[in-house]
Amino acid sequence: MSKIQSKLNIIPLGGLGEIGKNMTVFRYGDDIILVDAGLMFPEDDMLGIDLVIPDITYLVENKDKVKAIFLTHGHEDHIGALPYVMKQIGAPVYGTALTLGILQGRLKENGVSSEACKIIKPGDKIYAGNFKVEFIRVNHSIPDAVALAIHTPIGIIIHTGDFKFDQTPVDGQVTEFNKFAEFGDQGVLALMADSTNAERPGYTQSEKIVGQTFDDEFRYAKNRIIVATFSSNVHRIQQVVDSAVRYKRKVAVIGRSMVNVVNISMELGYLKIPEGVLIDIDESNNYTPDKIVIITTGSQGEPMSALTRMAMSDHKKVDIVPGDTVIISATPIPGNEKLVSRTIDHLYKLGADVIYEKSNGVHVSGHASQEEIKMMHNLVRPKFFIPVHGEYRHLIKHAQLAGSLGMPRENIVVGENGSIIELTRNSIGINGRVPSGKVLVDGLGVGDVGNIVLRDRRQLSQDGIMIVVVTIDKDTCTVVSGPDIVSRGFVYVREAEGLMETAKEKVQQALDKCEQSNVSEWSVIKSAVRDSLGRFLYEKTRRRPMILPIIMEI
Amino acid sequence: MSKIQSKLNIIPLGGLGEIGKNMTVFRYGDDIILVDAGLMFPEDDMLGIDLVIPDITYLVENKDKVKAIFLTHGHEDHIGALPYVMKQIGAPVYGTALTLGILQGRLKENGVSSEACKIIKPGDKIYAGNFKVEFIRVNHSIPDAVALAIHTPIGIIIHTGDFKFDQTPVDGQVTEFNKFAEFGDQGVLALMADSTNAERPGYTQSEKIVGQTFDDEFRYAKNRIIVATFSSNVHRIQQVVDSAVRYKRKVAVIGRSMVNVVNISMELGYLKIPEGVLIDIDESNNYTPDKIVIITTGSQGEPMSALTRMAMSDHKKVDIVPGDTVIISATPIPGNEKLVSRTIDHLYKLGADVIYEKSNGVHVSGHASQEEIKMMHNLVRPKFFIPVHGEYRHLIKHAQLAGSLGMPRENIVVGENGSIIELTRNSIGINGRVPSGKVLVDGLGVGDVGNIVLRDRRQLSQDGIMIVVVTIDKDTCTVVSGPDIVSRGFVYVREAEGLMETAKEKVQQALDKCEQSNVSEWSVIKSAVRDSLGRFLYEKTRRRPMILPIIMEI
Repeated sequence: MSKIQSKLNIIPLGGLGEIGKNMTVFRYGDDIILVDAGLMFPEDDMLGIDLVIPDITYLVENKDKVKAIFLTHGHEDHIGALPYVMKQIGAPVYGTALTLGILQGRLKENGVSSEACKIIKPGDKIYAGNFKVEFIRVNHSIPDAVALAIHTPIGIIIHTGDFKFDQTPVDGQVTEFNKFAEFGDQGVLALMADSTNAERPGYTQSEKIVGQTFDDEFRYAKNRIIVATFSSNVHRIQQVVDSAVRYKRKVAVIGRSMVNVVNISMELGYLKIPEGVLIDIDESNNYTPDKIVIITTGSQGEPMSALTRMAMSDHKKVDIVPGDTVIISATPIPGNEKLVSRTIDHLYKLGADVIYEKSNGVHVSGHASQEEIKMMHNLVRPKFFIPVHGEYRHLIKHAQLAGSLGMPRENIVVGENGSIIELTRNSIGINGRVPSGKVLVDGLGVGDVGNIVLRDRRQLSQDGIMIVVVTIDKDTCTVVSGPDIVSRGFVYVREAEGLMETAKEKVQQALDKCEQSNVSEWSVIKSAVRDSLGRFLYEKTRRRPMILPIIMEI
Repeated sequence: MSKIQSKLNIIPLGGLGEIGKNMTVFRYGDDIILVDAGLMFPEDDMLGIDLVIPDITYLVENKDKVKAIFLTHGHEDHIGALPYVMKQIGAPVYGTALTLGILQGRLKENGVSSEACKIIKPGDKIYAGNFKVEFIRVNHSIPDAVALAIHTPIGIIIHTGDFKFDQTPVDGQVTEFNKFAEFGDQGVLALMADSTNAERPGYTQSEKIVGQTFDDEFRYAKNRIIVATFSSNVHRIQQVVDSAVRYKRKVAVIGRSMVNVVNISMELGYLKIPEGVLIDIDESNNYTPDKIVIITTGSQGEPMSALTRMAMSDHKKVDIVPGDTVIISATPIPGNEKLVSRTIDHLYKLGADVIYEKSNGVHVSGHASQEEIKMMHNLVRPKFFIPVHGEYRHLIKHAQLAGSLGMPRENIVVGENGSIIELTRNSIGINGRVPSGKVLVDGLGVGDVGNIVLRDRRQLSQDGIMIVVVTIDKDTCTVVSGPDIVSRGFVYVREAEGLMETAKEKVQQALDKCEQSNVSEWSVIKSAVRDSLGRFLYEKTRRRPMILPIIMEI
């Protein structure tokens, strides 16, 4: 074995220093495998952007080396970039049945074939070049999540994916603690583990807790019950169904993604709904309100979602009426707090009783808290440690937790997206970088919106635009028409006629000056107009609209 | 006394169904008094807006009746609209020394005279028309806060302002429980009380807790300490100073509003800093890092604030270095979570140790939790109750709390901004409305940005703008120049030349068609261009930029 081949490179392309777009490359010699390919939702300042995916330049440049893609579970932040990745990378994609079921819907929407998808289950082993990957069942807020044991020529890497230790999972399928322990016995070179809740002391509660809350609410609710949650949380949906059955209510499902996931999960056997319980929303009028439960999307206050439409009295099929109980079984994802809060207020105004995060037991996290994280470390007992999946501060806290368990500081690497983390049997360190970053998806455009476009959108969003058009005779350099001024998003013109008139005069003065000094370069004229008008508007309004002079030549 | 005069109208113009812009009108016959006049920060969808103030049409229409304005404390959401209100309403403004000290700064910035301001202190009584207003000391996250006992011809109204019950306040000035109890003994017609924390069980912790946390951190910190907090939380600043003195550190203050408030508070005696402790930030290099504390703004991750600049390595005077301890002594205000989180991450990346909300005792709320709220009700024992200061759900929770103490449902009114709440000695109810709403302030413009401008800004922010200009000979109706296409915020033009070329052809086709069918109405030509180009762009990009056809005539 040559010297180069005794090194393993781990290259995170997403998920480090951020919550979302998780994606990790493993490279040994000329063999590459990829773990997950997630998307991220845009930051507030990415105006008009639909979603964000990792920069995969490195993968595309090495596409012939990519032997396989492995998926840990079916959440958007782990599979959402695949429609884009699979268009460029031809490798087989391995995931559990539910993961691939959800993925196939996404692929279809994007016109990508799902031929490359291969179903695996916990315990399976897949060979991919120099790698052998083994799947270990873990608990998370979606069924069928797995961790990976990646056998490499220099040792075993354990990648936890997203996980929690649920001692009483809804489907009875406990995390395979024994597998982690066995790998620990064999010796693990490095652990890569979920850092999302590394700030949270103690243990994350069991999903079962939420079922008990549902039971309590269902027992006392006198009218209709509406439950909003994440569509991918199939166990949560199962618990709503179970409570409905127990309290003799019918269940209607609304919201596009909720209907999709419920259908897939029933087909694949992850969701069990007894005959006759599920009804169409249109049939719900045949029952008294105390016999109905509606399961819906919208737990994040998303403007177009079913629950938000209900709250705004804008849903085609469901009107909220006094006496309804609405359970928002979720916690707002950072950035969504205000949307959720607005939804709650509107529901209250319509007379609903709203049960939300401030109540205990209405939601539990899908990620391990500090004690579970420590337990994972103590089961796996790795030589080296790389915290993954988290904002920078989560990674740091996770590194500190590992330190508190006795791992030497030099055995821990807190990387960044694009870092080439180099491992040998005896060492770990960062050795260079590959291209990495955020690729913005806006409509059909992937990566065509860059910093300049975003900067323009930001300026337009703040103070609008003012367009100045003049037609100039290019032979005589004299103005033959205009200047005309049109503004949008600056000020309501009917209320600012005086301002617009004076603005026009300012432009005229600037043009006259140019004419007097025989300026014939359009760019000089444009910047004279921009400066003079900009100064005038700022003085009068303290606003800085984008000023766009356009010269038409005849 | 005539029938009309035996009625009291309470009209909230802000603060109901929202956190912010608190403002309440009390009217008895032809006498009006106003309590507070606050601002609110813009919602996410109010693009480019600087701040939001209440609609004061009702006050302006009745300006001769306004006898006095009373302020409960110096926070922006209680005094921030005064520079605008005082330009139109000439009544005297009563507040405590610190409240008016802070207000005077704001008035000066806005070129408004502060002649109308009159300092009062707890225990003072002010007569204003038919009203007599008495001030009661309460605790809050700013010193010198008061509740009001408003004596009216039909009974006493207690307005709590913002409050908490701090049993060990930093300045030793406990809430005047006895006063509330005495009014309770006399009989209170109605209570209006702070609902901000009505969702929170138990008691709010004492401000002193934070001082203990500072002591703990200061004891162990080996290098420089930077504390970010709200500039108006003078007691918090006092505690930083106290810890600094205890651990022999010098204190430097940075951030415009922090420097302002520290100066005012020292002048007025609310902040006590021993001689020689306060240094200029420029002098801090004369000391070793373990002898320095910096107090700064930026606890909300505000983009232009001192702490955010430090985190982005963009502050003129302070570079964060490994070993610095940064204490963010605040909790993110809803909507600011992501900004704060980004600041924390950047500070960690620079090597600082960051202490923030996830740690216990680094911040306490300034608002009463459920047990304190109940205590307030039990001290005052009002006949009627109006929850104020809160989102709709907070008002509802507060109403439920009052109900749980035995108040009949019909004695509680949950109003909205603009509701005319009518009280007699024996009844309470809503009787009509006055104009109310949000007035948007953008630069120097107050209310000149309305729905149309905001709608345009939103569209511009999402997909940008595409401007199509043609010069047309108005006699022959033929195009003599153009069409030219200019876009901003849509797509980076250099990378989309082909698209822009085809777009131009589409416009040309639309123009040709108009010419062939002898269309000579500009508006018809414009909408032909808009439709044809819009359809083309949506098909190709799934984006909908604003399309702005401009026709120049010669």
